Amino acid sequence: MKTSSLTQMQQAKTGVITPQMKAVAQDEDVAPEYILQEVAKGRVVLNCSRRRKKAKLLGIGRGLRTKVNANIGTSQQLSDLPLELEKLRIATEAGADTVMDLSTGGDLPLIRREILQTSTIPVGTVPLYQAAAEEIARSGDLLNLSADHIFEVIEEQAEDGVDFITVHCGITLKTLERLQKQKRLIPMVSRGGAFLANWMLRNNQENPLYEQFPRLLKLAAKHDLILSLGDGLRPGAIADATDRPQLEELVTLGELTEEAWKADVAIIIEGPGHVPLEQVRANVLLAKRLTQGAPFYVLGPLVTDVAPGYDHLVGAIGGAQAGAAGADFLCYVTPGEHLRLPTLEDVEAGVAASKIAAHVADLSKGLSSAWQQDYNMSHARRELDWAKQIEYALTPRKVKDFCHHTERGTVCTMCGEFCALKWGKIDGESLK
Amino acid sequence: MKTSSLTQMQQAKTGVITPQMKAVAQDEDVAPEYILQEVAKGRVVLNCSRRRKKAKLLGIGRGLRTKVNANIGTSQQLSDLPLELEKLRIATEAGADTVMDLSTGGDLPLIRREILQTSTIPVGTVPLYQAAAEEIARSGDLLNLSADHIFEVIEEQAEDGVDFITVHCGITLKTLERLQKQKRLIPMVSRGGAFLANWMLRNNQENPLYEQFPRLLKLAAKHDLILSLGDGLRPGAIADATDRPQLEELVTLGELTEEAWKADVAIIIEGPGHVPLEQVRANVLLAKRLTQGAPFYVLGPLVTDVAPGYDHLVGAIGGAQAGAAGADFLCYVTPGEHLRLPTLEDVEAGVAASKIAAHVADLSKGLSSAWQQDYNMSHARRELDWAKQIEYALTPRKVKDFCHHTERGTVCTMCGEFCALKWGKIDGESLK
Repeated sequence: MKTSSLTQMQQAKTGVITPQMKAVAQDEDVAPEYILQEVAKGRVVLNCSRRRKKAKLLGIGRGLRTKVNANIGTSQQLSDLPLELEKLRIATEAGADTVMDLSTGGDLPLIRREILQTSTIPVGTVPLYQAAAEEIARSGDLLNLSADHIFEVIEEQAEDGVDFITVHCGITLKTLERLQKQKRLIPMVSRGGAFLANWMLRNNQENPLYEQFPRLLKLAAKHDLILSLGDGLRPGAIADATDRPQLEELVTLGELTEEAWKADVAIIIEGPGHVPLEQVRANVLLAKRLTQGAPFYVLGPLVTDVAPGYDHLVGAIGGAQAGAAGADFLCYVTPGEHLRLPTLEDVEAGVAASKIAAHVADLSKGLSSAWQQDYNMSHARRELDWAKQIEYALTPRKVKDFCHHTERGTVCTMCGEFCALKWGKIDGESLK
Repeated sequence: MKTSSLTQMQQAKTGVITPQMKAVAQDEDVAPEYILQEVAKGRVVLNCSRRRKKAKLLGIGRGLRTKVNANIGTSQQLSDLPLELEKLRIATEAGADTVMDLSTGGDLPLIRREILQTSTIPVGTVPLYQAAAEEIARSGDLLNLSADHIFEVIEEQAEDGVDFITVHCGITLKTLERLQKQKRLIPMVSRGGAFLANWMLRNNQENPLYEQFPRLLKLAAKHDLILSLGDGLRPGAIADATDRPQLEELVTLGELTEEAWKADVAIIIEGPGHVPLEQVRANVLLAKRLTQGAPFYVLGPLVTDVAPGYDHLVGAIGGAQAGAAGADFLCYVTPGEHLRLPTLEDVEAGVAASKIAAHVADLSKGLSSAWQQDYNMSHARRELDWAKQIEYALTPRKVKDFCHHTERGTVCTMCGEFCALKWGKIDGESLK
């Protein structure tokens, strides 16, 4: 596919429908002109790193299917490259639209490059993790990190072909002041955010990703790298949801988004986090309003703190509601969240849960392809056509597993001859 | 506990605070006068069969915690009493507030009595299943069933000490006419509803549970049996949600509710079913308005058709939203729904999912005990106190399972030394 040294946004602004826009339009069954318009306005972003040729082109944003990201990656306790590649495979097979490599342990550049080489879906990263790990290796204290080092790592990762990066640009000295006044139950749960905050306090300096934002934009424009503006102050407890530091950061992210768009750089806005269900819709509205409709990427949201072991399900409750309210991109949460680095089973369950939430959101928003899929499934159900039910299922493997254990003819063990689908065929001729 | 020959509602209407009302008030941490008022108005029902002494007293309705029911019971394909008792044990341990014995295979009275004798939580049934099974045994054709037989089975079950029964009183000839005009994708998915509809069509007669509703009320009043008015026309496909036959039935249930209240009989209203997320709130509102605030009992709702194998999760998404909108009682859906009679694992996963949904709803409604639990959990999380995290978890067994597999000191394998909870402790003194 032809690439240009201009960013997709830049080309969209001049009215050029790129091959990438066409491909995404086809994938989403919308007009290329729609994609052009939304990319120009920043409300749709295109994952299409110039460095990688084999990853699927993927649009995220307004009017498109709700997308799902799966976080994979090593930790310092558990670093096993083949395991991570297996997670990538499982996540992709389960229907993840993107993965983020959040590795913090082992040879980070090697792990990232292997993931990039293997992945057929776009890949995101958090460059700060590599910078921090390298600083720990160098001086034993990550707070010695230099701003230049952060930017060097970002450039290195962009050159490797990463599609989007999380950068915590909204944590400012002002945000930290508001955090102090707020007296949160849990001050910070963002790793990148917490490093930066500690760095700022130790060095008594403004966040370099904020202060040198134009430098970041120049880098991003050069590689057409999507900047996913992280929410370092996302609430990590229900009690802290939708508070002043969270909003301070979001307002800042809105300002930075406008700057980025002026520089033709595509932006994603990251959102909470732990949010009670009745605040989810307001959170989506706030993010969309304060950032002029930039694609919104939520972590969950987790609508309660008290269900560790089932946080994929908690995230699906929040994600479905967020998606229905307009969030464009759901970051999965696995059953292991808060407890352990996800296992292979956790990855599969996490993607399944988020895919379901995304589909529920798409139904809720009235997306016709989503309604068609439900229609097809229920039609197959009415006809007791098990093969087609497997075909239309979001998680066909699971359905096959369940059916394996079941002796069935045309009815299942649930109702047997009491099957309502058989007894219930009573409209039409039966009433004559 | 003292019992009276008057129903709880009858006593409430005369201003008598019964021991049962006091017990429920204490359990829910509300004033006995509140329970008195709500029971008198029909908006809270008390599960307190006079026949059974050991089951927990349980209130369901406005202002109380959202409750969870687990369906257990045999089918004609799979009838195993010890297995059902084990399901009862697992459901109770996982936190189900009630169970319904939906057995359709084996010695139904024996199974029910064993469940009633064993259960420490209230038990509901669908008497029509027994009547149908007995008629099949007698004549080989359940459509030969007599109205008297249905009422005899109801009386038998009430005398056994069942707390509440599902009766599909709202299926009328008028409803079936509207069903015919609607041309649904899946006409009926309620087993009891489908039997009755077929019976009515075959015998060209009105539904006896509708036509002889006063007879049913007399029986219910005698035993202070709660009538859970079934939704035979609940949508079984997203495409059929919130349609005319569903509403016709609901309107009828509203009229019957008023009749029941005049006879001092407690009512629960059953609701959908398959409903897209953006229609859930309207469904709760309609049920509450059309029945003057009777407790609302939802099956799921299932917010998509396409996730068999994960329907517990789909039901949790819908149940959380329904509960937040005012539904009082969530019927669990298990991963096996649409595929097989639930296994023990399915029962546990189903209860866990619904308990989480109920808790999310309680948080959303601002219930202070729910908020306190989340506060406690997040406080324990901040302190990296794993023992307390297990204590405050909705599903402690699951958390223990996960922690088993994990080597940990004070941090987990997810972030290791990058733990944001350690790095993130930066408000207060750190900023000075």
